[in-house]
Amino acid sequence: MFPSQVTPVRTSNVLVLGAGNFGSCLADHLGESGHPVSLWSRKAPFVAHFNATHRNPDYLKDHHFSHNIQAVGPDLPDAKMLKEMDVLLFAIPTQAVRATLTQLRPNMDEAKLPLLIFVNKGIEIGTQALTLEIIVDTCGPQIARAATFISGPSFATEIVRRLPTSVSVASLSRAEAQRASDLFHQPWFRCYTGADPVGIELAGALKNIYAIAAGLADGLGFENNTRASLITRGLAEMTRIGVCYGANPLTFLGLAGVGDLFLTCSSPASRNYTVGYRLGKGESLQTILDTLGSVAEGVTTAKGVKKLIDELGVDAPIATGIYEGLYEGKDIHRGVRELMSRPPSDEINLPDKAGGPVKTDELDNAASRRRRGAITAHLPPPCKRCPLSLSN
Amino acid sequence: MFPSQVTPVRTSNVLVLGAGNFGSCLADHLGESGHPVSLWSRKAPFVAHFNATHRNPDYLKDHHFSHNIQAVGPDLPDAKMLKEMDVLLFAIPTQAVRATLTQLRPNMDEAKLPLLIFVNKGIEIGTQALTLEIIVDTCGPQIARAATFISGPSFATEIVRRLPTSVSVASLSRAEAQRASDLFHQPWFRCYTGADPVGIELAGALKNIYAIAAGLADGLGFENNTRASLITRGLAEMTRIGVCYGANPLTFLGLAGVGDLFLTCSSPASRNYTVGYRLGKGESLQTILDTLGSVAEGVTTAKGVKKLIDELGVDAPIATGIYEGLYEGKDIHRGVRELMSRPPSDEINLPDKAGGPVKTDELDNAASRRRRGAITAHLPPPCKRCPLSLSN
Repeated sequence: MFPSQVTPVRTSNVLVLGAGNFGSCLADHLGESGHPVSLWSRKAPFVAHFNATHRNPDYLKDHHFSHNIQAVGPDLPDAKMLKEMDVLLFAIPTQAVRATLTQLRPNMDEAKLPLLIFVNKGIEIGTQALTLEIIVDTCGPQIARAATFISGPSFATEIVRRLPTSVSVASLSRAEAQRASDLFHQPWFRCYTGADPVGIELAGALKNIYAIAAGLADGLGFENNTRASLITRGLAEMTRIGVCYGANPLTFLGLAGVGDLFLTCSSPASRNYTVGYRLGKGESLQTILDTLGSVAEGVTTAKGVKKLIDELGVDAPIATGIYEGLYEGKDIHRGVRELMSRPPSDEINLPDKAGGPVKTDELDNAASRRRRGAITAHLPPPCKRCPLSLSN
Repeated sequence: MFPSQVTPVRTSNVLVLGAGNFGSCLADHLGESGHPVSLWSRKAPFVAHFNATHRNPDYLKDHHFSHNIQAVGPDLPDAKMLKEMDVLLFAIPTQAVRATLTQLRPNMDEAKLPLLIFVNKGIEIGTQALTLEIIVDTCGPQIARAATFISGPSFATEIVRRLPTSVSVASLSRAEAQRASDLFHQPWFRCYTGADPVGIELAGALKNIYAIAAGLADGLGFENNTRASLITRGLAEMTRIGVCYGANPLTFLGLAGVGDLFLTCSSPASRNYTVGYRLGKGESLQTILDTLGSVAEGVTTAKGVKKLIDELGVDAPIATGIYEGLYEGKDIHRGVRELMSRPPSDEINLPDKAGGPVKTDELDNAASRRRRGAITAHLPPPCKRCPLSLSN
């Protein structure tokens, strides 16, 4: 039933950093689309195993990967290899982005910067910085403006089987978002471009907290109305937090917002949902984390987001309740009772002054940028001739 | 775990018109909240049975209803009864609203109009009018401005068991929306007010089409990514259609939009989802409708909405595809292939001029109002002293 594959007008040299579940799946997608792909892993045994077998020993184990992929590593690519690349795709954990960019930056050729794509989701522990802020800090605002983010409802195991999938592709530079869309788009992998990377990033990080909440409601024995209500009110919270950052509230209506939230909250395959469900059934967080077998990002994100919520002064009772349940030993039943006892309110109550442009030109500190309003207001406008130019 | 029930400061005399699944459930909720409720049915046997047993023989059969409810009918309430009522709650099918309002209107006391609440969802067959437009046509724009709409993810069977439920309560009159919220709000039935009845109505009607699409995808063997993508792209379509009517796009982020869409698309209890699923498995529409045992509103709505889409010139490929599959015998696999072959695009592409105010003061014809833009631009501003006043 599928339409024919799109063959690229010209192929791109792609370096995928990170050979985890999503990184190796996207490497496969691009390899299958005809692009030569280098897949970097920090593990030497992975590199040898992959190049010998075209299989990933840790993820998507049943899948035979594209022969257009060559594994590289364990050292980070040097200046020579970086110079050959048209695209760098970062599929590493958010906590590793700052160190990786700091190491790569001196080896990047400013005269011919590759397309930079980020697919990690999360908030940096300690600084509560988004990836866009980490890029500003490590590579400067011009590179941050060109950085492109991909997010949306996309289980890797379905992508490698070519089950129809759609994603948001966002950058402050329209031209770069379009380049990334051109690279990835296939009939079964549909790319929708947008200009709000902050909203895309926040949605991707925050959704995991509301997946815990949805699981918790189910674990407590609530049913469909309650789950749908929690997800929707969670979306309203995400939107309020996003608007404080200068994100467009409509971004949360899209694939990286509603789409990924649906996927994460309605699939028993979601680790975050499972954490919530087991909490609702009465297990302790420690027992759950000890036996889960993998990381539930929402548990970490809840801690960082609590600091953000306090810093921004935004009303986020569900995320606050999840934080208190996870980290302050608050009784879950009491938390639910408090949520239900809140007075009736307007449905969409966005803060009046949020998202406005910022008057200061200070670019040094992510936290103070956030306190003052929109992150993106600090970034310089794109160069009209070339959105990637650093000379502007 | 529930907080205490809220006792109303003063009770209201409520007339619920329609003793179906949702009407009788809301009558029960208001009766349990301490309000004296008259529950009107056009069936004499229902009235006798309910008053003798406090049970509904057709819906929610296991539930013992509040003793604050008295069934009335089968004749429509007369002027004397209407005069005693503080609230009229319309829980009748959309197709019956015009006739019912036409009959009731001469018996309504203009000097003391009750709060008018509508919970029906759908578009009038033939005219493609929303309920707000039907109210303008039958009762005039002042009454339409005061009408209040309730919608959201709310299975009746969960509401009568007091499982936590949240709904949107919207009116062009803020004061009326607040009155309705005050009437309904309980810890387990949370009301969120808004000012966009057009968006609330459209979301309620359109969601059923996308539930058919979600079921169809599952029936065809697609998985989580595809369903989440279809729901989200369906939401983008709903929003585009809504904006053409002058609705606020953020309304679709709320309980009546995302919330109800999520409920309808993810529950096997949804009739619309089931129609899609069985179509995907290869059954014919006629076979499905002959054996479904109840009405799937999305099948009818798809027909009306196709006319709307053509009239408005809005891009709605999923709703168009569902229409062609249901009514033009289009091969489903071909439809999916065509959807997947569409070129990549921007994610949120709202029409530039949509939703703008209208210059004409013509109020006669719903279709021409729609063609010109926002419906609400035709309605007069509320009276500052009393939002219900007809004398203004």
